[in-house]
Amino acid sequence: MNLKINKIGSPYLMELVNEQGNSCLIDASASIGGTDKGLRPMELLAGSLASCISIDVLLILTKQRISTDSYTVEIVGERKEGVPSPFEKIDLVFRLKNEANRPKVERAVKLAIEKYCSVASSLSEQIKINYTIQLLDD
Amino acid sequence: MNLKINKIGSPYLMELVNEQGNSCLIDASASIGGTDKGLRPMELLAGSLASCISIDVLLILTKQRISTDSYTVEIVGERKEGVPSPFEKIDLVFRLKNEANRPKVERAVKLAIEKYCSVASSLSEQIKINYTIQLLDD
Repeated sequence: MNLKINKIGSPYLMELVNEQGNSCLIDASASIGGTDKGLRPMELLAGSLASCISIDVLLILTKQRISTDSYTVEIVGERKEGVPSPFEKIDLVFRLKNEANRPKVERAVKLAIEKYCSVASSLSEQIKINYTIQLLDD
Repeated sequence: MNLKINKIGSPYLMELVNEQGNSCLIDASASIGGTDKGLRPMELLAGSLASCISIDVLLILTKQRISTDSYTVEIVGERKEGVPSPFEKIDLVFRLKNEANRPKVERAVKLAIEKYCSVASSLSEQIKINYTIQLLDD
């Protein structure tokens, strides 16, 4: 894996670019002079966890022929006060269509978090990852 | 912090959106059917680390009136084999203009990694973070 960060604006605007040329804008919080033109680093970290879990969940559910057409995840992170301010807790709410089979979705999410997700296994053990599953009407 | 992942294409294309509406595309590796339309979750994780450190480095250097006009960071990650496959090592190469003061840049990077960066303090202690600093001619 080889990536690059380029500063593209002052004081903190950066782009993250991978080897295939995919990119993402990153900015600091407004409290230190950021300009809200990109995601913040701790948001990227929480998003990397939720998307890593999601890829495994989508893979498992698709194999079981469960529809993932309206798949979303809400991510709420809580951080320690002070400097540095790591995550203490990340809550994930997985939402799929009502027709999905709840026990199978629960099993897929549990397997993804505990067994397959490389982002989860790269995080500090101090961070608690909670999840709930909501099956919604169309 | 409140973020959302939306699946926007099959089989794995997702967007990560924050409360300000900033977003980033995420996709899986081609080996499991990804379509290379976005960054991969482990790339986002490595990018969150490098950008978090960078914000502190840029803040410290700017206060010391050291130019950060041509600031870039190269990120090389090495992962364990197997499933899951967490990072074992992340190497960062910080590149600035030759006029920058090397001891001050080194001190800023060291402080950012060891003391200030909330992403670094959210990662597993098993991950080794190495860095080098290159001062380049224009």
